[in-house]
Amino acid sequence: MNINLQKKSAAQAAVNYIDEGMIVGLGTGSTANYFIEALSKKIKAANWHLTCVTTSTKSRQLAESLGIHVVSIDDVNHIDVTVDGVDEFDPQLNGIKGGGVALLFEKIVALSSNKNIWIVDTSKKSDKLGSFLLPVEIIPFGSVQLFTKLSQMNLKPQFRVDNQNQKVLTDSKNYIIDVDISHVSDIHKLADTLKSLTGIVEHGLFLDLCHTVIIGGEHIEKIDR
Amino acid sequence: MNINLQKKSAAQAAVNYIDEGMIVGLGTGSTANYFIEALSKKIKAANWHLTCVTTSTKSRQLAESLGIHVVSIDDVNHIDVTVDGVDEFDPQLNGIKGGGVALLFEKIVALSSNKNIWIVDTSKKSDKLGSFLLPVEIIPFGSVQLFTKLSQMNLKPQFRVDNQNQKVLTDSKNYIIDVDISHVSDIHKLADTLKSLTGIVEHGLFLDLCHTVIIGGEHIEKIDR
Repeated sequence: MNINLQKKSAAQAAVNYIDEGMIVGLGTGSTANYFIEALSKKIKAANWHLTCVTTSTKSRQLAESLGIHVVSIDDVNHIDVTVDGVDEFDPQLNGIKGGGVALLFEKIVALSSNKNIWIVDTSKKSDKLGSFLLPVEIIPFGSVQLFTKLSQMNLKPQFRVDNQNQKVLTDSKNYIIDVDISHVSDIHKLADTLKSLTGIVEHGLFLDLCHTVIIGGEHIEKIDR
Repeated sequence: MNINLQKKSAAQAAVNYIDEGMIVGLGTGSTANYFIEALSKKIKAANWHLTCVTTSTKSRQLAESLGIHVVSIDDVNHIDVTVDGVDEFDPQLNGIKGGGVALLFEKIVALSSNKNIWIVDTSKKSDKLGSFLLPVEIIPFGSVQLFTKLSQMNLKPQFRVDNQNQKVLTDSKNYIIDVDISHVSDIHKLADTLKSLTGIVEHGLFLDLCHTVIIGGEHIEKIDR
């Protein structure tokens, strides 16, 4: 089964975790988009009344265009289930997210969720995190000096740029620096160190947050933490 | 001597720490403004060529209006001396900053500086930090949930608002929550905990950063760490 059909089948399977009346978090990215589409069909078919919270402007626009009721995260006091993609995950269900620059809002939503489900194709599974670059969201002011510090930490930083070579801006108007963590053995320690640095707003290591991974394919695989 | 004259005399004394050719960090606030004015006079009188980095839009505008050469922090690889105010400092020269909402840029500049000098009036001295509220800069997305968490930590949070009751925005378009740390005994632990929370960009505890405090007055007092 090709990658897109795998994503779609994982997204479809995740709809089974949603029920009438829930507050649902909607992720960002191509796989999350399949879930938003599948969920909107289910809402119509079952005549559900759901409240959804989105993790990016793009997801909000897609959800609203499909008739999904979207509110601000600050209008709810919890989220029942959040369904999102992930760029890479390991056997402990730790992952790297942020390929799509939405990592900060995705992490805020994930931390407010009673259950987090990641929907993936088979390419996202990894024995050890680091084949994907880790995105770090940083304040533009002083970013060159922070870049130097990340270089000294042997993390081979690179500013994320668009195809006009302009630095990419997140929804919070910050920059993204991608770092190479393929040689890092203690990802929890790295996560703490990165977050402790002034100028770093957040990073894409999502540790101990995911409850269930659904891997799409002809036979759907589910892994619980 | 009244408070403003104390501030002015401390600012004047700080000019003695500056020399020709230096890269100088300029703080934000009423006392820092006195330093910017005193420095501009000295630059003209001594025909110095200094390069300055500012910590806010307001400081940049004041400095440039007085003919000071200002560059971006990302155009220098270090800062020789930064002179800034502080809202409250203790005998270990740890302090609370951010009454003027510029704490994030002030901390980034302080961390890049070989020497940090705080200029103060006598009211800023404290046996234990906490008579001043601690400002915390936070991402607007999810800020209500973060507020709840800070309440649960017994920090009595309050959003900083302007006189139209609108939430104040920092130069990075974030909110400020002020918290009460008067009962906190381990400020280093609190600093680490706050910075570790997703959604918190930075806080106003400046620990182990200041080298010298200059207290203005008829007799200038200098305290070195």
